[in-house]
Amino acid sequence: MEEKFRKRLKEEKGKFLHYCLDEVMLSNGHISTREMVTHPGAVGIVAVTPEQELVLVKQYRYPVQSVLYEIPAGKLETGEDPAEAAQRELAEETGYNAGNWEKLTSLYTAPGFSNEFMHLYLATNLVPKKAHPDPDEIITYDTIPLSKVQQMVVNGEIKDGKTVIAVLWLIMRERQSS
Amino acid sequence: MEEKFRKRLKEEKGKFLHYCLDEVMLSNGHISTREMVTHPGAVGIVAVTPEQELVLVKQYRYPVQSVLYEIPAGKLETGEDPAEAAQRELAEETGYNAGNWEKLTSLYTAPGFSNEFMHLYLATNLVPKKAHPDPDEIITYDTIPLSKVQQMVVNGEIKDGKTVIAVLWLIMRERQSS
Repeated sequence: MEEKFRKRLKEEKGKFLHYCLDEVMLSNGHISTREMVTHPGAVGIVAVTPEQELVLVKQYRYPVQSVLYEIPAGKLETGEDPAEAAQRELAEETGYNAGNWEKLTSLYTAPGFSNEFMHLYLATNLVPKKAHPDPDEIITYDTIPLSKVQQMVVNGEIKDGKTVIAVLWLIMRERQSS
Repeated sequence: MEEKFRKRLKEEKGKFLHYCLDEVMLSNGHISTREMVTHPGAVGIVAVTPEQELVLVKQYRYPVQSVLYEIPAGKLETGEDPAEAAQRELAEETGYNAGNWEKLTSLYTAPGFSNEFMHLYLATNLVPKKAHPDPDEIITYDTIPLSKVQQMVVNGEIKDGKTVIAVLWLIMRERQSS
């Protein structure tokens, strides 16, 4: 089913995205175009307090022109190990350190037009310290009971895909262990 | 927390993506840049057969250079109603018509760098007809028992974010009704 690159029709290199429009040959010989942005990859952290509350950050998202509730997350730096990036992002955005880390899964957030690959980690045994966000990130965080975040997913108050996955994954685990 | 547009530093208009690098002013007065692609929006269809099997399509995804299992999905056409787009995409990619439609949720797949807004629908009472995919889409589909797709999510065989959401959402509903 492979689609073979023939030539690049358009491209623009940005700060972390690289936009491309390529002419490709499909496996049936048909010529078509494929459009995408490449992305450095990312981590998301499902951080649960001893009180069974999920740590959610609130920030303005310029692409969607609104403030979203999301799990702490961020892009990988060049050559960075995802597990280390997860610890870094959780500390930067919330100040929490976690005594226990578990990899949950890795997935493509939008494979129709991007190669962003997101690694999700569960962080528990949280120890609060001081957050130190990037100077160009304005972020606050809340801890919200798991029963409440499930409602927020069902009623659409949580609109971020990776955060929906985080909440539903916790519900699945809860069900397995009960 | 709003971030105000100051000027466009780079852009490239493609076929359905529009890449932009903007200079913005944060709510604290700091000047920064934001990079994104705008997207026309999309639908995803959680189609469940009377035998409690999930309909999954298999297709090569050029951005990630591999074949993925995904729920049927597609971009909105200009001015198209999402509920109609969902019926159209399910029929195009799998041939199924559904007697019963229910809106599950809408969410941003990758709000850090895109405004793609995806509407997810549950489709049941499926009637098989003949698929009629776009000439530049090479797609096959399978129907897979819900217990098996849950395993495929947990073991990472399903790597597509919207499909992970679809499967976990079904598990949550099953749990609520049991």
